[in-house]
Amino acid sequence: MTSNSFGRLFRFTTWGESHGPAIGCVIDGVPPLIPLTEADIQIYLDKRKPGQSRFTTQRKEPDTVRILSGVFEGKTTGTSISLVIENQDQRSKDYGDIKDKFRPGHADYTYEKKYGIRDYRGGGRSSARETAMRVAAGAIAHKIISSRAKTNIKIRGALVQIGPHKINRDNWNWEETQRNPFWSPDQDAASKWATFLNDVRKSGSSAGAIIEIVATDVPIGLGEPIYGKIDSDLASAMMSINAVKAVEIGDGFNIVSTPGNEASDEMRIINGEPRFLTNTAGGILGGITTGEPIVVRFAVKPTSSILSPRKSIDRFGSEVEVITKGRHDPCVGIRAVPVGEAMMACVLADHILRFKAQCDT
Amino acid sequence: MTSNSFGRLFRFTTWGESHGPAIGCVIDGVPPLIPLTEADIQIYLDKRKPGQSRFTTQRKEPDTVRILSGVFEGKTTGTSISLVIENQDQRSKDYGDIKDKFRPGHADYTYEKKYGIRDYRGGGRSSARETAMRVAAGAIAHKIISSRAKTNIKIRGALVQIGPHKINRDNWNWEETQRNPFWSPDQDAASKWATFLNDVRKSGSSAGAIIEIVATDVPIGLGEPIYGKIDSDLASAMMSINAVKAVEIGDGFNIVSTPGNEASDEMRIINGEPRFLTNTAGGILGGITTGEPIVVRFAVKPTSSILSPRKSIDRFGSEVEVITKGRHDPCVGIRAVPVGEAMMACVLADHILRFKAQCDT
Amino acid sequence: MTSNSFGRLFRFTTWGESHGPAIGCVIDGVPPLIPLTEADIQIYLDKRKPGQSRFTTQRKEPDTVRILSGVFEGKTTGTSISLVIENQDQRSKDYGDIKDKFRPGHADYTYEKKYGIRDYRGGGRSSARETAMRVAAGAIAHKIISSRAKTNIKIRGALVQIGPHKINRDNWNWEETQRNPFWSPDQDAASKWATFLNDVRKSGSSAGAIIEIVATDVPIGLGEPIYGKIDSDLASAMMSINAVKAVEIGDGFNIVSTPGNEASDEMRIINGEPRFLTNTAGGILGGITTGEPIVVRFAVKPTSSILSPRKSIDRFGSEVEVITKGRHDPCVGIRAVPVGEAMMACVLADHILRFKAQCDT
Amino acid sequence: MTSNSFGRLFRFTTWGESHGPAIGCVIDGVPPLIPLTEADIQIYLDKRKPGQSRFTTQRKEPDTVRILSGVFEGKTTGTSISLVIENQDQRSKDYGDIKDKFRPGHADYTYEKKYGIRDYRGGGRSSARETAMRVAAGAIAHKIISSRAKTNIKIRGALVQIGPHKINRDNWNWEETQRNPFWSPDQDAASKWATFLNDVRKSGSSAGAIIEIVATDVPIGLGEPIYGKIDSDLASAMMSINAVKAVEIGDGFNIVSTPGNEASDEMRIINGEPRFLTNTAGGILGGITTGEPIVVRFAVKPTSSILSPRKSIDRFGSEVEVITKGRHDPCVGIRAVPVGEAMMACVLADHILRFKAQCDT
Repeated sequence: MTSNSFGRLFRFTTWGESHGPAIGCVIDGVPPLIPLTEADIQIYLDKRKPGQSRFTTQRKEPDTVRILSGVFEGKTTGTSISLVIENQDQRSKDYGDIKDKFRPGHADYTYEKKYGIRDYRGGGRSSARETAMRVAAGAIAHKIISSRAKTNIKIRGALVQIGPHKINRDNWNWEETQRNPFWSPDQDAASKWATFLNDVRKSGSSAGAIIEIVATDVPIGLGEPIYGKIDSDLASAMMSINAVKAVEIGDGFNIVSTPGNEASDEMRIINGEPRFLTNTAGGILGGITTGEPIVVRFAVKPTSSILSPRKSIDRFGSEVEVITKGRHDPCVGIRAVPVGEAMMACVLADHILRFKAQCDT
Repeated sequence: MTSNSFGRLFRFTTWGESHGPAIGCVIDGVPPLIPLTEADIQIYLDKRKPGQSRFTTQRKEPDTVRILSGVFEGKTTGTSISLVIENQDQRSKDYGDIKDKFRPGHADYTYEKKYGIRDYRGGGRSSARETAMRVAAGAIAHKIISSRAKTNIKIRGALVQIGPHKINRDNWNWEETQRNPFWSPDQDAASKWATFLNDVRKSGSSAGAIIEIVATDVPIGLGEPIYGKIDSDLASAMMSINAVKAVEIGDGFNIVSTPGNEASDEMRIINGEPRFLTNTAGGILGGITTGEPIVVRFAVKPTSSILSPRKSIDRFGSEVEVITKGRHDPCVGIRAVPVGEAMMACVLADHILRFKAQCDT
Repeated sequence: MTSNSFGRLFRFTTWGESHGPAIGCVIDGVPPLIPLTEADIQIYLDKRKPGQSRFTTQRKEPDTVRILSGVFEGKTTGTSISLVIENQDQRSKDYGDIKDKFRPGHADYTYEKKYGIRDYRGGGRSSARETAMRVAAGAIAHKIISSRAKTNIKIRGALVQIGPHKINRDNWNWEETQRNPFWSPDQDAASKWATFLNDVRKSGSSAGAIIEIVATDVPIGLGEPIYGKIDSDLASAMMSINAVKAVEIGDGFNIVSTPGNEASDEMRIINGEPRFLTNTAGGILGGITTGEPIVVRFAVKPTSSILSPRKSIDRFGSEVEVITKGRHDPCVGIRAVPVGEAMMACVLADHILRFKAQCDT
Repeated sequence: MTSNSFGRLFRFTTWGESHGPAIGCVIDGVPPLIPLTEADIQIYLDKRKPGQSRFTTQRKEPDTVRILSGVFEGKTTGTSISLVIENQDQRSKDYGDIKDKFRPGHADYTYEKKYGIRDYRGGGRSSARETAMRVAAGAIAHKIISSRAKTNIKIRGALVQIGPHKINRDNWNWEETQRNPFWSPDQDAASKWATFLNDVRKSGSSAGAIIEIVATDVPIGLGEPIYGKIDSDLASAMMSINAVKAVEIGDGFNIVSTPGNEASDEMRIINGEPRFLTNTAGGILGGITTGEPIVVRFAVKPTSSILSPRKSIDRFGSEVEVITKGRHDPCVGIRAVPVGEAMMACVLADHILRFKAQCDT
């Protein structure tokens, strides 16, 4: 029921504003006796944190997480886990510019209209800073997956398009995603993107991105029809990430133009095991995992905070122009990769526990 | 927590299998004193029911809904509303063919693996027959919207692509959607689709579709960040519909290749009112409605039940071929239009009540 | 979130009014492959149904339950189970008397004020008829318990007080509860109650009762602190039964006057097993089961529908007198025994599934 | 779904262990624009904090609350509110005694058996220290009530029994509750209790208590049948407080021995308004408020931590004796008064928002 909570059995609740004293989350439903340290979480946070390349914001946040409850002598106790990150780089500055003006593409206008009040400093609650806590929750989700899943699930993310430039899927190499600042699985694309983004930034503009998250070795049977389908939960999870405007599973929108006699995945017995010959379904049929890789893609719109002037209005009903100065990612989609991985982990952890409740004997 | 329930404050729970004695739903959270008759619901069900053109299944189901509770002397009482539709056209036939074989593209395999049992008759619980109850719930959602929204919300759906054939958006005419069997807003596209689908059916194949649902005159401020964003709820709603593989809001995936200095919607004061000059955001910013039309598109994969033989396996681990005889829609996406409209209505009704709870003074 | 639903993982949603066409419920979260027939449920309904002795209402309701979904070839499928009982003895009568008058002790006034409308026929939604669906849900809960609990849980209920007359606990004999019309574990008390209730009825009055529900052989570890404590859930469950005004666990209110050095249950190792020497705690410590019997008592107020005139008002603000004619139980508490047993079963089934989700390895 | 959360629309989630670095809670669903400062919360915490008289534990905790999110420029923003209290008086001591031994009457044994691990320091998560966050959440609930209720609701609590010693209800004086260390409404009882508790403490024992919480000027119509009845929610709320073993509404258990022709509250028109002549129902009929005062009583068992030796076992299966040294309340029930008030406030705030959602036009 809470709008700041995600998940059913593995459930986290986040809080905090971009420029408030801290951000944090409370995680409930975690099984006991799972080894957990702050370092286990920090490793995931470090993947997401800003300032790691010239293509992400230069805001410096050490983003050091503290565990305040739910862990005793290095193990989870089954009680609620509280995580907190103090906000450090709250650069004192004049917010006058955005205090009263609604930045185009941002949630300024809608928060103001809905609530009649908004913490305008850095976007407040609507800032992508909130996603740090998704990553932290995802770190614990990974621990639950390792501890409870019957298979050795692996979750990986990649950027497959920036602006109009797609990767060449023939070049796909997961290891390459660890070697360039874009999580690109295609080395050539990474080079092109670097040039492209430099131009974009110089022109005072920004670019969108498509992220693909793949989970392999997923056990068959996760997902609960009709309204707890795992694809439905993944769509909700990804669409809740800042700036996301689209989500697709498997072949997604492309399946529409595939003839029906090619669109379903055929099955054979291979090495004595049932196997699908293709995976247009993205690992999900009827809302339940098939055992094939879960494949989810989502679109992140171009960064709305740009140096180019945009027409807008202010709180008093006057027409204004808005230029967003400051340290902003030319392509926020890049930093959405670890966030998407985290949300996949959270959905899977939740469904693993749900499977245990209903279907384990 | 229930997997067969949708919504938070306006909430429905569905039950029933394709060839069981009946299907139904229970709807909770409905405000009292709203006029409601079976005819009010039937009118929506009739839009969805099969056998209305040669492009949808010829299975005849009168789909007559009965209200069993929650309404007294023609008005809602605030208690749970029970709706039921008896299954009538349960043609007695030999299910032997699908009893043991897993139909490609269907949920047969995943239900069997998850639950160890499945009602194989007509797809059982995984049948799109369940969507009749979404439409019924949607009819009541419309009533709540009329009764409680501060604006005169209008929800309409259209088919914008079948197979590879898109509409021409310059031809868009909402009235045309009521005049052809495809809910096409483009008369020309409707003609082409008729020819195309005839060919598809003759070839024993099927086609996918893209549906667009638009809600206009939506009040500003619906949607609850962070995990109750209205786009997140819409994504979950649409993705839970049978055969849906993708969902997008506003410009969706296309926004990725739009330059950042064009991707956000600028604002001006027009006739004394704040207005957006474009609507790439699809009426939602930060998970909250802007007042502009909400625009959602979703992709329905080609009907999996086709006459062409497909490779599969059976429950005993043998390799088999599957041909799905019987009365099937060559393009199930057509009948998804009223279902998508219903889900939009349910999400809006839910958020209207949620707004009242938190933000009404 | 739904007010007509109970439970988290084992969850049922009820619907229906006393004199509407039917009552029913939908049950979600039931594990698959559990054998279940209508007879399995009917046996519990028959314990509760009216007209079984002269101490309960003479309204005749066969209360025949039908399973409409979620069961295939005699086994649960893991999908939502729909149960329905048609209302048969809707004796056509003049409701004019209670249509406009608020019966004292009933929910007439509060429903009218809250909703502005009420189905006044037989109490509508507020009628104890709703409890039939709790008993039906409880029957399925019993099945889950048998299938999933690690111990052989036994749930039994008894009446321990009618009006001012308590049982003698030294006479406690569980088998006796099956031999008298009061579920009394004390044969002597049953005799006295028969005389007492005859007098009560003749005088146009009614009597209250205290019910005790005991669950034995409960596994250790059920219950989730802090707000999912099993005693908290039991309190909620029992207090939601019609006419219940009090709930206590173990020694309940009496523990207040017990000195602290006698109020906690000491432990010893007996036959190699940890055991409690007493059970003042009623089988629950910190919201978690101890393995000792769970003991819950609840108070049912005297039947409000009585022949003696009572002062009230009507919908139009006039002062009136109300006499409730018709067939009413002189002590509704008697029929609350199987309802209390059912709620205990539902809470235990829910927590067994919750334990599996979080704590099973 | 989360076990550490309470409430539906006004919902709080607590975290923290007795001797961990901090305790806290996250509160969701709070309407925007409500003035809120740390001082508003502190005033309630100060009522509950230890060390205020010789009848409560001498543990010194300033219990200073900090607001970390959800409030901007002194007003709520509609986003999640994070509250934290650092634990200061974590006196470094040897926990060896209780590390391995199960203290009788405590949750040591059940936490150990359920989770296989427990933070034994000061009771960890099962410590009554958690109730500080209930009081903090209750402070915000009070703010919502003031802002949103249609009447001027007043919530007050009193101690009505300690050990075997009851107050004399003829002496009831609400102002007296602010003048003695027991929240006693009866000055004479307070004197007797002082003597009694001194004796109890000297003897190394402890005493139980009964608390009564009364809410006056409650609007009619709060509470949602069937499973969201306000008495059901109050029962759940009070029973979830540490050491509570019984809850009753209005006349509670006593109504059982009241003849039916006296047990329902009659109505008259008084000064032009509908009024009840008595309030045996405790302000609730059919789970919905009547407008009369809501009256709830709950029983707190004697403090389990006492100096008298008690038989127990340890983690290794050996029989031991346990003496709980340290600073403990001889009657924990005293400090439960503000906790009960807080839970009443939380339930009312939640139902006020729920009423707005469904029943406000």
